[in-house]
Amino acid sequence: MRTATVIIDPQALTHNLMQVKRLAPKSKVLAMVKANAYGHGVAMVLPALQQADGIGVASFTEAFEARQLGWEKSIGLVEGVFSADEWQQAIDYECSCVIHHQPQLDWALANVPSPDSATRSVWLKYNTGMNRLGFDDQQTITAAKQLHQAGYQLILTTHFANADDREHPLNDLQIQRFDKMLALLKSTVSEDIQGSLCNSAGLVNFPDRHYDWVRPGIMLYGSSPVIDKSASELELQPAMEFSARIMALSTVNTGEAIGYGSRWIADKPTRTALVSIGYGDGYPRVVNDETHVCVLVKDKSVGSEQNCQSYQSYQDYKSYLCPVRGRVAMDMIVIDVSSVPNNIALDSKVILWGNAPHVDDIAAQAGTIGYELLCRLSARPARKQAL
Amino acid sequence: MRTATVIIDPQALTHNLMQVKRLAPKSKVLAMVKANAYGHGVAMVLPALQQADGIGVASFTEAFEARQLGWEKSIGLVEGVFSADEWQQAIDYECSCVIHHQPQLDWALANVPSPDSATRSVWLKYNTGMNRLGFDDQQTITAAKQLHQAGYQLILTTHFANADDREHPLNDLQIQRFDKMLALLKSTVSEDIQGSLCNSAGLVNFPDRHYDWVRPGIMLYGSSPVIDKSASELELQPAMEFSARIMALSTVNTGEAIGYGSRWIADKPTRTALVSIGYGDGYPRVVNDETHVCVLVKDKSVGSEQNCQSYQSYQDYKSYLCPVRGRVAMDMIVIDVSSVPNNIALDSKVILWGNAPHVDDIAAQAGTIGYELLCRLSARPARKQAL
Repeated sequence: MRTATVIIDPQALTHNLMQVKRLAPKSKVLAMVKANAYGHGVAMVLPALQQADGIGVASFTEAFEARQLGWEKSIGLVEGVFSADEWQQAIDYECSCVIHHQPQLDWALANVPSPDSATRSVWLKYNTGMNRLGFDDQQTITAAKQLHQAGYQLILTTHFANADDREHPLNDLQIQRFDKMLALLKSTVSEDIQGSLCNSAGLVNFPDRHYDWVRPGIMLYGSSPVIDKSASELELQPAMEFSARIMALSTVNTGEAIGYGSRWIADKPTRTALVSIGYGDGYPRVVNDETHVCVLVKDKSVGSEQNCQSYQSYQDYKSYLCPVRGRVAMDMIVIDVSSVPNNIALDSKVILWGNAPHVDDIAAQAGTIGYELLCRLSARPARKQAL
Repeated sequence: MRTATVIIDPQALTHNLMQVKRLAPKSKVLAMVKANAYGHGVAMVLPALQQADGIGVASFTEAFEARQLGWEKSIGLVEGVFSADEWQQAIDYECSCVIHHQPQLDWALANVPSPDSATRSVWLKYNTGMNRLGFDDQQTITAAKQLHQAGYQLILTTHFANADDREHPLNDLQIQRFDKMLALLKSTVSEDIQGSLCNSAGLVNFPDRHYDWVRPGIMLYGSSPVIDKSASELELQPAMEFSARIMALSTVNTGEAIGYGSRWIADKPTRTALVSIGYGDGYPRVVNDETHVCVLVKDKSVGSEQNCQSYQSYQDYKSYLCPVRGRVAMDMIVIDVSSVPNNIALDSKVILWGNAPHVDDIAAQAGTIGYELLCRLSARPARKQAL
């Protein structure tokens, strides 16, 4: 069977959540599970994130899915609602919404939920420099007053544009603006107003700015949110293993080219393997010639060698990093297996990303970030949970 | 409601299939619907492709899905089967398989289906220079003899590596090799052996090389398969419209940056709109600053202006091409709506690709090809059929 497979490891997710809690022990955690839990599958991840204080989603559809799956704690709609009707749905399903522009404010003021409703808590979005969502200074002050007067509990929130880069000058400016606004609202509107500034990158790079809620996303899934530290340096474990199988073996002669565009030409006879994976599964089409996959070869004699172990026990396997050769096609890639012993078998497992290579490595080789690779998996790979 | 929406137009698919038939009137058509019909959804496209002679899929799973959906004509497994058991399944579900390496040949010879089975017809894959799948010269001759002797009907097949570029020297070499092998097999094995060489690009660029079967893929979906002609020059119609909605409007002041990495800085006060689309839906994260979307603004006075019409009737709308500003995020993009009249409404429709911009344009701006954008849509956008 053609097998492109995504395996999700709940233990890694829980480990990463605990790592968040160690880094931000005084803050509540809104675990971001939008975009189908960054491609991991909401149903797969929710049981592993039970110790989060809430989850963050991008749409009411995603919130509804989480409630259907039995999630009973807080749900934050990070883009808020898109209509007055949806505001009522948010109330019906006990969602806590971001309010980032005037229509959302109007809907909230026109339809105030009962005092015991989770929707009485709103995330007031203040634009400090991302220039995407949010109110400016005066609008924020006005909105805060109106919402407070109507009985809402407020969490002042904003979003970092460059928290991945500790030294970027906008960070301090965003922090200053946020601090000043929070102090102002506390003194003029209500002492009870809470604050939330940090995504994963802010959480790592600005440990004294965690405020009441942190909003980790990518680090829950085991990727590094910052430019100067790897996932393993941050003690994060990848929650996804993406793999396929060897479907044929061959040898390419000197001077022969491989694949579309004849992009890669063999400078010596090269043993190749065809792997049943392509961009139709979500593996990126554009990767550079430094891109590797990890081939697992069964070898009882190897014992405890576990270079490439991932979620399952790979101790009976030896692992080999093999370069991708030629262009990634829709359903196949060719890899160079010259370094692998001759006893390599058809159907051998090939890890595209997991512990090694890490999705962040492949993303760098594809000119993007791990977030995108995780989210842009297609529906074709089989989804499984690690044993 | 947050609305990223994929609309599939069956009429465009049928039109494109008819265009294939006009270009290759003497050949049978194996319509490629692998990778969930290039991201369009197999269930959506099969009814529109009833006039194809068969469909091509990448795995038995995909073949099974097509049979479940009621497809009764030929199904070609373009990577063949992955095990002896799967060979039996191919027989059970009347699939016609590629045989590209020795194990597949062994499974076929060990288990020959009855004479009336569709599986008695096999696609013998000959490697002419793609160096991905297929047998070399001697192996091909041997396999052809063995398969013929066992009672199989043969289609000799190979795959172009550079057919998108008419002038690439490998094309002629591949054609020569294929021609020579086909003639040899016809004279030494059986006159009845058929041939199949052309994917979409070959079909367009090599009109005298269509042989018995053509295997169009991308052109069925309305993208150009060749480097020197656009889809509209080939009279192809995009079968997919990908759209989202405006979720907020704002103004960014001079000197302010937009989005992650503060990549784009306003050189004048700029009216912006936030659009509910991101790489979490499958819009590519890395696009250049020439990338545009099409905003539709309701304007009864406009009458028949239809710059941007797609599947539905947009005659009551005026369309505006607006540039994407700053980095594409997981759930949102920011666009510059300075060129759009002030009466632009929240919830206005924004076409990401369709008739204009065409997916091939966005792909070029993202450094890839339309095939990849279509295939790498995530499960998040809603799927609909054009009315």
